[in-house]
Amino acid sequence: MARDYTPITMQKTRPILAWETLLDLDSGADAGMTALRQPLRGRLERALRAAVAEGRLPTGAALPASRVMAETLGVSRWVVTEAYGQLVAEGVLEARTGSATRVAASAAPSALEGDSDARNRPAGVTLAGVTRPPTDARGPRAPRFDLRPGIPDLRATPRSRWSSALRSALVTLPDHELAAAHRWGYAPARIAVAEHLSRSRHAVAVPERVLLTHGAGDGMRILAEELHRQGHRCILVEDPSWPRLREIAGRAGLRPIPIPVDDDGIDVSALTDAASRSGARIALLTPAHQFPLGVALSAPRREQIVRWARDQDAILIEDDYDAEFRYDRRPIAALQRLAPDRVALLGSLSKSVSPALGIGWALLPAGIDPEPSASSPSLIDQAALARFILHGDFERHLRASRIRFRRRRARMLEALRTELPALTPSGIAAGMHLVLPLPPGCTAMQVIAAAPADLAITPLDRYAADREAPDALVLGYGNLDDALVEAAVARVAGIIRELDPGRR
Amino acid sequence: MARDYTPITMQKTRPILAWETLLDLDSGADAGMTALRQPLRGRLERALRAAVAEGRLPTGAALPASRVMAETLGVSRWVVTEAYGQLVAEGVLEARTGSATRVAASAAPSALEGDSDARNRPAGVTLAGVTRPPTDARGPRAPRFDLRPGIPDLRATPRSRWSSALRSALVTLPDHELAAAHRWGYAPARIAVAEHLSRSRHAVAVPERVLLTHGAGDGMRILAEELHRQGHRCILVEDPSWPRLREIAGRAGLRPIPIPVDDDGIDVSALTDAASRSGARIALLTPAHQFPLGVALSAPRREQIVRWARDQDAILIEDDYDAEFRYDRRPIAALQRLAPDRVALLGSLSKSVSPALGIGWALLPAGIDPEPSASSPSLIDQAALARFILHGDFERHLRASRIRFRRRRARMLEALRTELPALTPSGIAAGMHLVLPLPPGCTAMQVIAAAPADLAITPLDRYAADREAPDALVLGYGNLDDALVEAAVARVAGIIRELDPGRR
Repeated sequence: MARDYTPITMQKTRPILAWETLLDLDSGADAGMTALRQPLRGRLERALRAAVAEGRLPTGAALPASRVMAETLGVSRWVVTEAYGQLVAEGVLEARTGSATRVAASAAPSALEGDSDARNRPAGVTLAGVTRPPTDARGPRAPRFDLRPGIPDLRATPRSRWSSALRSALVTLPDHELAAAHRWGYAPARIAVAEHLSRSRHAVAVPERVLLTHGAGDGMRILAEELHRQGHRCILVEDPSWPRLREIAGRAGLRPIPIPVDDDGIDVSALTDAASRSGARIALLTPAHQFPLGVALSAPRREQIVRWARDQDAILIEDDYDAEFRYDRRPIAALQRLAPDRVALLGSLSKSVSPALGIGWALLPAGIDPEPSASSPSLIDQAALARFILHGDFERHLRASRIRFRRRRARMLEALRTELPALTPSGIAAGMHLVLPLPPGCTAMQVIAAAPADLAITPLDRYAADREAPDALVLGYGNLDDALVEAAVARVAGIIRELDPGRR
Repeated sequence: MARDYTPITMQKTRPILAWETLLDLDSGADAGMTALRQPLRGRLERALRAAVAEGRLPTGAALPASRVMAETLGVSRWVVTEAYGQLVAEGVLEARTGSATRVAASAAPSALEGDSDARNRPAGVTLAGVTRPPTDARGPRAPRFDLRPGIPDLRATPRSRWSSALRSALVTLPDHELAAAHRWGYAPARIAVAEHLSRSRHAVAVPERVLLTHGAGDGMRILAEELHRQGHRCILVEDPSWPRLREIAGRAGLRPIPIPVDDDGIDVSALTDAASRSGARIALLTPAHQFPLGVALSAPRREQIVRWARDQDAILIEDDYDAEFRYDRRPIAALQRLAPDRVALLGSLSKSVSPALGIGWALLPAGIDPEPSASSPSLIDQAALARFILHGDFERHLRASRIRFRRRRARMLEALRTELPALTPSGIAAGMHLVLPLPPGCTAMQVIAAAPADLAITPLDRYAADREAPDALVLGYGNLDDALVEAAVARVAGIIRELDPGRR
């Protein structure tokens, strides 16, 4: 392929000497990766990408000649030239004959994000050769103290296992399957998901009722559009809850009606009252681990809500987002088990494995038979999912994650007890986040405003629908670096102590 | 992982002796695959899967012990045990201690397709252990004489290159990108697509206006929903054309208004008349190679339609489905080049590489800024696409396909001249299909009715919207086996001659 890279900006070169520390080659290594070929080359590529993405290597910075770099790092020159070549091909680096290899102007992979100006610029501008995003090339970094909820441990992404699953799919899928119509999804993937849901979530699952999706949001969209087609116009939702699924339902024409949540989960009396006032016959629930409050729907309420659904010919949508991680006892069975004829169960790999895989499922009750979507998931991804489940890789990943999160959670709670003994976190029995109430007089907004940029914390209020949420923080620990648990809690506690009127 | 396969049906075993011919190990080999590890094992797996899918190995059939099979095929026993193990894990085979490995009841990968009874069965049936689809396990085979239009050569799927691209994505993506919000898609993929469209389609493409999709259908859905939100209620479409995109537009609330097509492409006078009657300000077009008639939109009409779009503040949607394959001259530039401010260009890998990859793009004019979809493509797939394009693999694949299709098309035309000298095929300058008019008095329906099950032919009328299409066949040659070109044409010709009243 002809490549003709013309750098658009080129900052003045400054010498960068400590390549061996800058490029900490070991940090990118994870045990799973050794199964892949060329780990050293891959690690060098990742280290260079990370250095660029995090701004340690700025736009225009010159890299050492491959021979020099190879000597500095103690690797073969082939490793370096291959890594440079790969990154040039990806547009991270730029190579010009007779000149040093440099960090490209468009290097940061997320250069286009948040570039709202660019989106408003008139189309019609083309750049000679390779087109380029504008010059501010710094991508968003991950926050150092990452307390965002709903994100699994990105360091523990099973890259090697998912790669094997994809490779296996590409090797084994017969030609004719590649162009076959797979209504609701590829049969082996539907079989595998049904098996997983039966075993891990005690759901009543047959492959015929499994629909493959791009994730819970996609499942919600398909479901909401089908229910709208059937005549539904509103949907009962938990308050507080994830705004995303409420918004997707809203866009499909289902008006959300928020219902309060208490220590036993959604208030079913309030729900039935609101339902009879509005005529709503759909409810969106997180029964196993309410998001964000972290409570479980109590057994009596489970029975009540199922009775309501049966009496009213209603549909319950169970968003089963992180129920696999339960710490005080065995995971709570899916609500779907109680009423397979009434409950649609939404799930995905996004919160249990990685949001980058873009694959999920919906287990649908009889009578909900959406047309196949305009965009069913890639057949390769579906076949990979089948293999990932049937080979036990998913189960293994869940088991390892459970152990990791349990340990991290214990350290979070211990640190909170030490730093903020007067505050009692809640919602801790499951999942990857907890809720920290704030002392009287200290508002969540004050805490957020005082937080430095490298500390990602979320006010409970962000998830409120109608009702104002109490002043509290939602602290996720799914992607919190194990080395930074105590430091992260100390930072949060420092801000709260500083603001606490009772302490002044 | 604990696996407990209980076969549901078990047909009486019949001995199958000629394993070495049944399993034709070489047929699955393609040069690209040698780059993958364990090619022999993979080939055995594929051969076994194909034998099951095609019914050559029926449900319940016992396979030879691995030692016997290894001797028969002249491979190591490890290859056989690994292949058996893989297929057991996928549910294609079943293994029970003390018994032969057998073809599983659920083996055919598409057992669930077309099983409409199963979809209407009440939910609530769970099977102990592994859940299973019903017993009729025969999947749909690919037709032997595959003349379906719109399907690329499945035998030439670049499995190894796409696998490398996926592996590279999994190795190189930095952790923090895995959970980042990629509005409209991952930046390197948007850059790569803009580069491809600039170079190959002469489009005016900047990455900021590229949105990653699951394919042209997904792009159509996103676009149609956004245009509906902006107040549009109808869309001008070609008649005949693919029903799928019209249906997607219709589901989003845009009523299709069919406009006739002649030898110069869509009738622009008829279009402007219909537009002024209906108020429609959107048109869906296939300018480079009209589907299914195969004509190109003439230069004067291109100018007319662009002028109309500018005058009326209208949007042209260019479905650029197979324009890469042009045989009489260089590919025709995208219409988008003439009016980047008016044209939205839809593309994907589905027809140029493989429908199984589930990835595509939309190049959007200013003013069309859809919200990010509830289901953007998997980040891994997007990063793989970036690499596939930037490494030149896409260009290489297109080049090889162009050569292959040109040769196959020449043989098709030669065979048609020989077999049916009185009929002149049209739409032959580009793409992967042609239109064959039928002799007077011979209807397309008669030909279809007389075609055997292994000959897949399509009446032109299937693509008609309002107007009845003339009696003609649409003959695709994208996935027609090179060894069967003349035989396929002879079969079609035989049916036509048999029916032709002029010959009787």
